[in-house]
Amino acid sequence: MKFVAILMGSKSDYEVMSEAARVLESFGVKYELFITSAHRSPKRTKDYIKEAEQKGAKVFIAAAGMAAHLAGAVAAYTTKPVLGVPMSGSSLASMDSLFSTVQMPSGIPVGTLAIGKAGAMNAAYLAVQILALNDENLAKALKEERKAKEDKLIKDSKSVEVIL
Amino acid sequence: MKFVAILMGSKSDYEVMSEAARVLESFGVKYELFITSAHRSPKRTKDYIKEAEQKGAKVFIAAAGMAAHLAGAVAAYTTKPVLGVPMSGSSLASMDSLFSTVQMPSGIPVGTLAIGKAGAMNAAYLAVQILALNDENLAKALKEERKAKEDKLIKDSKSVEVIL
Amino acid sequence: MKFVAILMGSKSDYEVMSEAARVLESFGVKYELFITSAHRSPKRTKDYIKEAEQKGAKVFIAAAGMAAHLAGAVAAYTTKPVLGVPMSGSSLASMDSLFSTVQMPSGIPVGTLAIGKAGAMNAAYLAVQILALNDENLAKALKEERKAKEDKLIKDSKSVEVIL
Amino acid sequence: MKFVAILMGSKSDYEVMSEAARVLESFGVKYELFITSAHRSPKRTKDYIKEAEQKGAKVFIAAAGMAAHLAGAVAAYTTKPVLGVPMSGSSLASMDSLFSTVQMPSGIPVGTLAIGKAGAMNAAYLAVQILALNDENLAKALKEERKAKEDKLIKDSKSVEVIL
Amino acid sequence: MKFVAILMGSKSDYEVMSEAARVLESFGVKYELFITSAHRSPKRTKDYIKEAEQKGAKVFIAAAGMAAHLAGAVAAYTTKPVLGVPMSGSSLASMDSLFSTVQMPSGIPVGTLAIGKAGAMNAAYLAVQILALNDENLAKALKEERKAKEDKLIKDSKSVEVIL
Amino acid sequence: MKFVAILMGSKSDYEVMSEAARVLESFGVKYELFITSAHRSPKRTKDYIKEAEQKGAKVFIAAAGMAAHLAGAVAAYTTKPVLGVPMSGSSLASMDSLFSTVQMPSGIPVGTLAIGKAGAMNAAYLAVQILALNDENLAKALKEERKAKEDKLIKDSKSVEVIL
Amino acid sequence: MKFVAILMGSKSDYEVMSEAARVLESFGVKYELFITSAHRSPKRTKDYIKEAEQKGAKVFIAAAGMAAHLAGAVAAYTTKPVLGVPMSGSSLASMDSLFSTVQMPSGIPVGTLAIGKAGAMNAAYLAVQILALNDENLAKALKEERKAKEDKLIKDSKSVEVIL
Amino acid sequence: MKFVAILMGSKSDYEVMSEAARVLESFGVKYELFITSAHRSPKRTKDYIKEAEQKGAKVFIAAAGMAAHLAGAVAAYTTKPVLGVPMSGSSLASMDSLFSTVQMPSGIPVGTLAIGKAGAMNAAYLAVQILALNDENLAKALKEERKAKEDKLIKDSKSVEVIL
Repeated sequence: MKFVAILMGSKSDYEVMSEAARVLESFGVKYELFITSAHRSPKRTKDYIKEAEQKGAKVFIAAAGMAAHLAGAVAAYTTKPVLGVPMSGSSLASMDSLFSTVQMPSGIPVGTLAIGKAGAMNAAYLAVQILALNDENLAKALKEERKAKEDKLIKDSKSVEVIL
Repeated sequence: MKFVAILMGSKSDYEVMSEAARVLESFGVKYELFITSAHRSPKRTKDYIKEAEQKGAKVFIAAAGMAAHLAGAVAAYTTKPVLGVPMSGSSLASMDSLFSTVQMPSGIPVGTLAIGKAGAMNAAYLAVQILALNDENLAKALKEERKAKEDKLIKDSKSVEVIL
Repeated sequence: MKFVAILMGSKSDYEVMSEAARVLESFGVKYELFITSAHRSPKRTKDYIKEAEQKGAKVFIAAAGMAAHLAGAVAAYTTKPVLGVPMSGSSLASMDSLFSTVQMPSGIPVGTLAIGKAGAMNAAYLAVQILALNDENLAKALKEERKAKEDKLIKDSKSVEVIL
Repeated sequence: MKFVAILMGSKSDYEVMSEAARVLESFGVKYELFITSAHRSPKRTKDYIKEAEQKGAKVFIAAAGMAAHLAGAVAAYTTKPVLGVPMSGSSLASMDSLFSTVQMPSGIPVGTLAIGKAGAMNAAYLAVQILALNDENLAKALKEERKAKEDKLIKDSKSVEVIL
Repeated sequence: MKFVAILMGSKSDYEVMSEAARVLESFGVKYELFITSAHRSPKRTKDYIKEAEQKGAKVFIAAAGMAAHLAGAVAAYTTKPVLGVPMSGSSLASMDSLFSTVQMPSGIPVGTLAIGKAGAMNAAYLAVQILALNDENLAKALKEERKAKEDKLIKDSKSVEVIL
Repeated sequence: MKFVAILMGSKSDYEVMSEAARVLESFGVKYELFITSAHRSPKRTKDYIKEAEQKGAKVFIAAAGMAAHLAGAVAAYTTKPVLGVPMSGSSLASMDSLFSTVQMPSGIPVGTLAIGKAGAMNAAYLAVQILALNDENLAKALKEERKAKEDKLIKDSKSVEVIL
Repeated sequence: MKFVAILMGSKSDYEVMSEAARVLESFGVKYELFITSAHRSPKRTKDYIKEAEQKGAKVFIAAAGMAAHLAGAVAAYTTKPVLGVPMSGSSLASMDSLFSTVQMPSGIPVGTLAIGKAGAMNAAYLAVQILALNDENLAKALKEERKAKEDKLIKDSKSVEVIL
Repeated sequence: MKFVAILMGSKSDYEVMSEAARVLESFGVKYELFITSAHRSPKRTKDYIKEAEQKGAKVFIAAAGMAAHLAGAVAAYTTKPVLGVPMSGSSLASMDSLFSTVQMPSGIPVGTLAIGKAGAMNAAYLAVQILALNDENLAKALKEERKAKEDKLIKDSKSVEVIL
């Protein structure tokens, strides 16, 4: 079994991170979704990573807010690709979660996406892109999906555009 | 042929980005290294991406400073994984290159690493992690390398530590 | 035909950018308004620029949010003046779109205006100022409009001012 | 006579702003270069603008640091295009001069370029682009110059590139 | 006649700045309140300052948002004390108005107060403190007012405090 | 008597800081709660600290917003541990209260917690941890509480988790 | 005796703050210069303020870095005008000292000047402006000095200016 | 045995953190000093904490830079007080390490000190203050040390002060 593991630090991240799940579903990519905290449940975090790896987790997506350590904590326990999603918050203009996720020391990378919903979706897209390196159907689906996004944009444009 | 393509927006990024090359070499991963700019040579950028994909590029690493658009421009032309390295600069505390690289819209992900040298190295590590999903030797090498990093840290600690 | 091309990266920018259109209309300046994304439709962006230039676009106004690359992408494909409008967003206090728009490398300028609505209007005013360099009627209209703005301000003042 | 007026708030801005002069010279565009401050010499600033306009100034470039008001002060006295260059400083990561230059109220645009030297050069490039709207030789020169920049980049790439 | 001149750049600043007026009234200090913009009405600004000085303005309070140049513009035309109030805005976390107001070059000081309402009130308090240097009644009133503020705080504390 | 002193600079901080009180109550730790300002009532602040110390205050928690000096003012008058809670505000993304609280000079420490409610609660948790160094019951209660938090998180996870 | 009191939080601020002293000397304004810290010597700070007021201090200038509380502490103990100078530091782009100085609560104003040397000089200029409200010689000297500054600027301009 | 455990994420933090050791030594407080990383050696970090607690660690001081997770990781494994020291870095004006250290979720406090050397020393001072709650000699030493700091400041003042 091959799947993507979506981790989040708190139930309050669920609404945003379910967007990542939706993207994976749209590509028929299997996923697990799990709440665990780098700070409140470090052992649970570590145990989950080990089990998930054994079951077939290929990519980890980790989302957290504030001093967002979850992605880094995951990266510390696996050499599988780890993608980080900084959650948006009410203080510090969300710089805290972005900086805490992206500024990892050399040797322990976290591929960081945009803050909030766009980042949640993009973590899923990047995971699919990674899996697609060895899955031609996925690779094709990614191209089609991108074409569809462009078609949507063209349609949006038509609804308002002014052309002389 | 399977390789990682390292792109940078200016020759001034070379010194930092050669660290990414060095990491890839240490894992025996082939790479191309190429200078092209999202702004000064957009066609060259696009052409390179198409050719590189055909030759076997599996992951793109793109580095740029200031209004760092290179990684986003690469991501716009490929559905292969794109990793972004924000270059450090003298103004705005390097927030410009970080924000320009990471805040991508949904559907066009750039997995962003830390600013500067640590990020250059981590882009390479993350690329190796991605390739290792289908290469057991690489996967093993990653684990050994991480063990070596920890051993180095332990040795560093021994040189200064005070234990009662 | 001489006109200003207003580009925006997403339909969600339309409400703000229609302010730019309104300003152009008030001066009787022709414009096109078009949605295209540096990331989701790079070819469409490039093609539009070429066609618009041939049809008579004299100034390009480009608006985008987050990692706002649209203005830079336009500037990469034309040597006509490009004006950038950073869209305001919910994270990073809108620094992401401002820095991504303004911090362009030498040789590829983007004249950047304020964030959001004021910037949308000012991009149009600056475009009119540019066209007015060779259009005395426009030049006169700009002076009259500025006078009118000052009169409005004086009227505003009268409604609340306290003078001893 | 048609020329570009380069204004700076202090002699300490001269070294950076002479880059703008150099770019204009390379295109054979005439310019004036003048030191005047929005705060230390407001009347001189105003008088210069009026005289320069009468003599044929088509575009104003204004550079200042810290609470950078010069470009805005110029914009208040002319309806000619005004381009602003935020000077880099030792505090606040140069955000002070950038924000003070770019965040102009609607009706009084300042087309703002990057902080420091790149911005100084780009103000000149944008001024040339504006003048080129009615000067085919300039328009051609801009295209050639851009081609030359790309050639330089390709040569830079050749000196370090690794192609498999 | 001795009075404080309250200037603001736009009618939208009126609600906040009327707090300054209220503080002055509470001390029986005369004031003028006037809308004028550094950018939209530079001559009106300059003329007002000259007239106000002649009529007896002792302290100028100037409030503006975004690229907040009003206080600096006032300071450029008078050697009377100028106090600046940065207005709060929706972008850049109000750093734009704060930095534009406070980072004045040497020789042209603007005594800057807090962003928004607290700053509006404090500009008035500081103006009263300045006038009180030669007015013993005002000096006494300031001490009484401060005592009253402390009494209010003690009362506030009583309503919630827990003392063992 | 052994207790924690909770100080806040204004009644508007009460709602947030009552969370600190609630945490202390949940551990059966006695506390005082008192409003006093570093600026509006400096003598009251100093007097309270002296009295509280004599009555048995072991840890001081101080919360303030904007130029948040209260924690520093407390730290200046006692050598007991002082914990600071930056209040969240509408300007400057709450960086003002955070920086004002945490950047204390050497010799006068303020242990600073997160901005707002999380910080209020954590100041109380840290105070309990400090008291627990000499109170085995508290030490045990802290471990149990942490276990309960983890159980809550696991329950939260169960309510949404997807496990293959 | 009428004088300005210059306070600084540490001897390391002396070099910058002696610029304030030099400005006062150039106007023949008497001053005291004193080191005292809001945190390391709160009683000394309070005692000095009371004594200085009695001896004739008319304006207080207070400079500090990091969590810069000195100006606020002075403002808490006097109703004389207090001017704050944020010292520049190596972290946080000096935002810490600026925000800590300027964001005072209503009722306790600190008129804040620019960061570092320009601010030190401007605190002195503003103090002179305040004293000049009742000293015609000072008022005249201020105007002459400003004229001299402008002359210097004109001379600077002459040395580099290009006029067609 | 009762001691303070000083942890740092990398040998490059040693120079700064040895200041913490020096402060503890000056009070005769025992300490351990140990290098371990939240990311490179998570198990080592966890194991050390458990062992140190058993041996008698009463307070943990943890220092790290960039995405500074070490203090949070320590806090996740102990309910002893954890004090965090953000290391200063070359990007993001050190906001990354500050925000990553201080913005902890409720229930897992990290008492955060200033960035860099002042913070390293203050972590030690705060640790001593905590231990002094049950050690009268330490409590007395803290008061004497503070008196000595004030004496030093007075001496510094004498060397430059100007008193009329």
